[in-house]
Amino acid sequence: MRLATLRDGSKDGRLVVISPDGLRYAFAPIPTLQDALENWDLALKLLAGVGEFPDELAKTDLCAPLPRAWQWLDGSAYQSHGDLMDAVLGISKPKTDLPLMYQGVSDRFYGPYDNVPFSDESLGIDFEGEFGVVVDAVPMGTTPADAFKHIRLIVQINDWSLRTLAGPEMKTGFGWIQAKPPCGMAPFAVTPDELGDAWRHGRVCLTLNVEWNGKQFGAAQGEPMGYGFHELVAHAARTRDLVAGTVIGSGTVSNANFRDIGSSCIAERRGIEVIDLGQPKTEFMKFGDRVRMYATDENGRAPFGELEQKVTRA
Amino acid sequence: MRLATLRDGSKDGRLVVISPDGLRYAFAPIPTLQDALENWDLALKLLAGVGEFPDELAKTDLCAPLPRAWQWLDGSAYQSHGDLMDAVLGISKPKTDLPLMYQGVSDRFYGPYDNVPFSDESLGIDFEGEFGVVVDAVPMGTTPADAFKHIRLIVQINDWSLRTLAGPEMKTGFGWIQAKPPCGMAPFAVTPDELGDAWRHGRVCLTLNVEWNGKQFGAAQGEPMGYGFHELVAHAARTRDLVAGTVIGSGTVSNANFRDIGSSCIAERRGIEVIDLGQPKTEFMKFGDRVRMYATDENGRAPFGELEQKVTRA
Repeated sequence: MRLATLRDGSKDGRLVVISPDGLRYAFAPIPTLQDALENWDLALKLLAGVGEFPDELAKTDLCAPLPRAWQWLDGSAYQSHGDLMDAVLGISKPKTDLPLMYQGVSDRFYGPYDNVPFSDESLGIDFEGEFGVVVDAVPMGTTPADAFKHIRLIVQINDWSLRTLAGPEMKTGFGWIQAKPPCGMAPFAVTPDELGDAWRHGRVCLTLNVEWNGKQFGAAQGEPMGYGFHELVAHAARTRDLVAGTVIGSGTVSNANFRDIGSSCIAERRGIEVIDLGQPKTEFMKFGDRVRMYATDENGRAPFGELEQKVTRA
Repeated sequence: MRLATLRDGSKDGRLVVISPDGLRYAFAPIPTLQDALENWDLALKLLAGVGEFPDELAKTDLCAPLPRAWQWLDGSAYQSHGDLMDAVLGISKPKTDLPLMYQGVSDRFYGPYDNVPFSDESLGIDFEGEFGVVVDAVPMGTTPADAFKHIRLIVQINDWSLRTLAGPEMKTGFGWIQAKPPCGMAPFAVTPDELGDAWRHGRVCLTLNVEWNGKQFGAAQGEPMGYGFHELVAHAARTRDLVAGTVIGSGTVSNANFRDIGSSCIAERRGIEVIDLGQPKTEFMKFGDRVRMYATDENGRAPFGELEQKVTRA
């Protein structure tokens, strides 16, 4: 099942069920995705009863499937990305067998076709292509094995990042505030079964295609996460209950052969340039630039639809 | 004006206006504090019209004045606390003229008399006495001078912390997830004018009294913040709009003469012991321990009421 949210003037929008071909929709028998997540077993029954899709989907009517959430926790589960960024930033992390995770702003997720405003090009405007999961209520202390059943939806995320601010903030130990404005989401939130075999051992085993101003930039595979989403959920829930609708991200999708397949963010490409050439040569985004992201399976199908966002001057 | 929220079975509770003597209340003509913050100018007029307080307040009926918020950003604005903690944790922060700030869990704030569950005494259970402000909608790029007018309410916070987990998480650069479970709030959120002269240059100039199991533990003054709340608000809003109802905290209230007046958290006292005695001797909280916090003005009046919370086994 694929779900989306239409703009209706309210903060949470109006939940709709998407037709199998992704072209039509029906209003869901539950007003919002947050409502559904707060009573998911019942919601799933009601949503599964939707069999006709009377209306044609217009992509600009869509907001993020979850336009705001009570909690957004983002991991950094792709080792090839983390190692490279640490090397470039000159950061030496202590050895740990725990996932990395920070808490980000969650009162707004931009819609898949929204313009995204920034005050200043000098901030190092960057996209980050990620996968994410949305959970129902997860009790404190839930194990990774039990966390699987709380993963109700899978989403595709663009984690907007301001690189000029990111290194200095990271070095405070307090994590990121200014370096992490709100994220965007691809149009469709999908149930795990919708991904079939591409959802395995808590990983989204799809190719994340990233285009910058119409040119191919990256095509990383989702599978090589160092921790599965079930482990990220359990990590987050160690000392807190997770409220229904909590979104947990993978961090930038990255593969060790990034020189061949490209990257899901500019910072990673610049890091490769620093190592290979002694300095970065790719610049960050400018006002008017566009990024497009869509994850595809072996047959070229894009279960989350596609996200295409433009950088604008605030 | 002092506002509080009564439990009514809903997630946001029921907003009430408190009588001048703090003993009685009237239902507000607006359902919740979040509703009021989203349209504050109108709300203030409606709330100011409440002149009779028919009902007696029972403290156990109270939840946090804002039982959940879309965003909680906590500073560390007391230099004497930050310097000591860095020295004890062996952390060397880069020089910066920006405030320190992390984003914490905000989908729940414990009520002032709630028991607070933890899984394990070995996690280093600690309280942190803080002040905080609640803003209405703050546009991205708001200056410190303009930020003043967005500070609508002032609150007193207990930022529960798990010290065994805090140092290792800080060293990742990603900030705290497991080390920072939900906070508690004292019962009354107050408008700045309610504090009179004790609200000056963006500081809460009150004494924060902290008692642990009935014994005096700290009595730090709120005034010596390195940054005022208006500066913390502007810092938070540099690259994001702040949603109405965002809560911004001061970090642990601390004064340079902490050996004389005590501390607002156990970690600070342990840090002093490390420096003075070579090792910490004060242990962290145990199941059944209680902490009481109440800020007082020169006349002994406690504008936020008092918070008293017990540590329990999850």
